[in-house]
Amino acid sequence: MLKLLPMKTLSSKTVYKNRWMTVREDEVERDNGQKGIYGVVEKPDFVIIIPFDGTHLYMVEQYRYPVAARFWEFPQGSWEHAPNIDPKELARAELAEETGLVAANLTYLGHLYEAYGYSNQGMHAFLATDLQEGEQQLDDEEHGLIVRKFTVDEVKEMIRQGSIKDNSTLAAWSLWSITNS
Amino acid sequence: MLKLLPMKTLSSKTVYKNRWMTVREDEVERDNGQKGIYGVVEKPDFVIIIPFDGTHLYMVEQYRYPVAARFWEFPQGSWEHAPNIDPKELARAELAEETGLVAANLTYLGHLYEAYGYSNQGMHAFLATDLQEGEQQLDDEEHGLIVRKFTVDEVKEMIRQGSIKDNSTLAAWSLWSITNS
Repeated sequence: MLKLLPMKTLSSKTVYKNRWMTVREDEVERDNGQKGIYGVVEKPDFVIIIPFDGTHLYMVEQYRYPVAARFWEFPQGSWEHAPNIDPKELARAELAEETGLVAANLTYLGHLYEAYGYSNQGMHAFLATDLQEGEQQLDDEEHGLIVRKFTVDEVKEMIRQGSIKDNSTLAAWSLWSITNS
Repeated sequence: MLKLLPMKTLSSKTVYKNRWMTVREDEVERDNGQKGIYGVVEKPDFVIIIPFDGTHLYMVEQYRYPVAARFWEFPQGSWEHAPNIDPKELARAELAEETGLVAANLTYLGHLYEAYGYSNQGMHAFLATDLQEGEQQLDDEEHGLIVRKFTVDEVKEMIRQGSIKDNSTLAAWSLWSITNS
């Protein structure tokens, strides 16, 4: 019979920190007595928003430096200066910043983890409807971000062709389609 | 008119490294001349496998230390000792290790990025069909992992109830359902 007890943390130290992430290395002991280390990236939770006007989905495209390319994705973001902000308030603000859209309705789709094998960062997904268009208000890190609307079928075709590459965008899509089915 | 040129890397240094990840900090310059830093987590690509017998999906449950809980997810993994392994070969091996399943067919669903805001790690998704059950062969990091099969409706209900938390599992689900629609 397997024992399902968690790993114990024997010690923990911060090995790197910048404004957006903290990396710690823990000394751990598994329930079978085996000792080892575990590197964990700590980041504040972020939100992702599916803006849907009944026919079109609004997406943003921006340069993603770690993979050196631009990709279309759903609007998303976190505030490192306000890590404990209410997710719905953050979703409303990020949507307006990145797309200019004001949503009369924000429906909560669920909470997931982006990369829980090595990170504690959570993701809150929202569906935004009853949309009114307005002006983008990008911050420095979002410089060069563009916004466009696509039909649902156009987005599905971009996914089939492999031009949408963002796990978070596709995970939010699953939440949306499964909670609606 | 927006200029869509990428950020330039001015310098790059490794700030942390363990067996499973390297963290580097780059000094960058945006096309508007603004300078800053960018922390990037480097990890080898991983695979995720949707094992489907026509009625049931096989999932695994394991303890995820960074978020201190056990969750059901699709089998997934990477080999830090063989980062350049062919993804299909890795998928076949990980599926057998974690679930004991041998798949006569592995269909490629696509390539995504797990967290391209701060990591370069790619994910290759596969559908595994024509399955034959066998014995798990877990490695040390997978100690305590269990496997079970669920109907498609059971998995959807787990997603609706919020008990599946893994972005990669839900992103693979989108790839599967959209490439089939």
